[in-house]
Amino acid sequence: MSTLNEDLIRRFWATANAGDWPAFEGLLSPDMVYLVPQTRERIRGREHFVEFFRTWPEAWRAEITRCIVDAQRAVTVIDFLTERGRDTGISFFELQGGLITEVCDFWPSDYEPPQRVVSAVERY
Amino acid sequence: MSTLNEDLIRRFWATANAGDWPAFEGLLSPDMVYLVPQTRERIRGREHFVEFFRTWPEAWRAEITRCIVDAQRAVTVIDFLTERGRDTGISFFELQGGLITEVCDFWPSDYEPPQRVVSAVERY
Repeated sequence: MSTLNEDLIRRFWATANAGDWPAFEGLLSPDMVYLVPQTRERIRGREHFVEFFRTWPEAWRAEITRCIVDAQRAVTVIDFLTERGRDTGISFFELQGGLITEVCDFWPSDYEPPQRVVSAVERY
Repeated sequence: MSTLNEDLIRRFWATANAGDWPAFEGLLSPDMVYLVPQTRERIRGREHFVEFFRTWPEAWRAEITRCIVDAQRAVTVIDFLTERGRDTGISFFELQGGLITEVCDFWPSDYEPPQRVVSAVERY
């Protein structure tokens, strides 16, 4: 089950990278939901979600850097690569019956570290 | 294995919430590494990492909202609750022999959504 689910998640990014929207849509439950908690944005329904990806206003490619999957859920960390450079995207997936029922994205940005109490915190 | 690893990860947050630093330290590999990619901060070694948590300059409590675990890795999403309010923390764990060998934290902040191409993006 976890292996099938890992295959499902890897195909999600592979079909998106290929711009193969019929194959991409085939991985999604019809009533799937997309969430971005940082902006409190939501999309309901796979047609709208596919349209959101299909009409993205710049060329991009996702490279998976972490992937953890269990029987019902998954997470990927991606490098989201555009002409502007690299962003990090963290996507949580809810899975049911071999389809994706929810995608919840986080986009953490770089920030200046606060003053730390302990001296063992290095910069790299 | 995944069940044992889920127990390990839940004890990580439970012992931290309890301020039980000896028990917390017992979950960590001696040469564990802590990473914050957004600030490019790193701590090497469990004594330093425990000190980092133990001396945190404000009272806090973590509540797990998502947890995914496999045989070698895990992720939690937490509500990090302080007097100031609630932050979201996403922690990736590398696991080996029943101990945590790496913790990699992301702290995604709220941001204003960009103009979207599709009209199906709602706010909630």
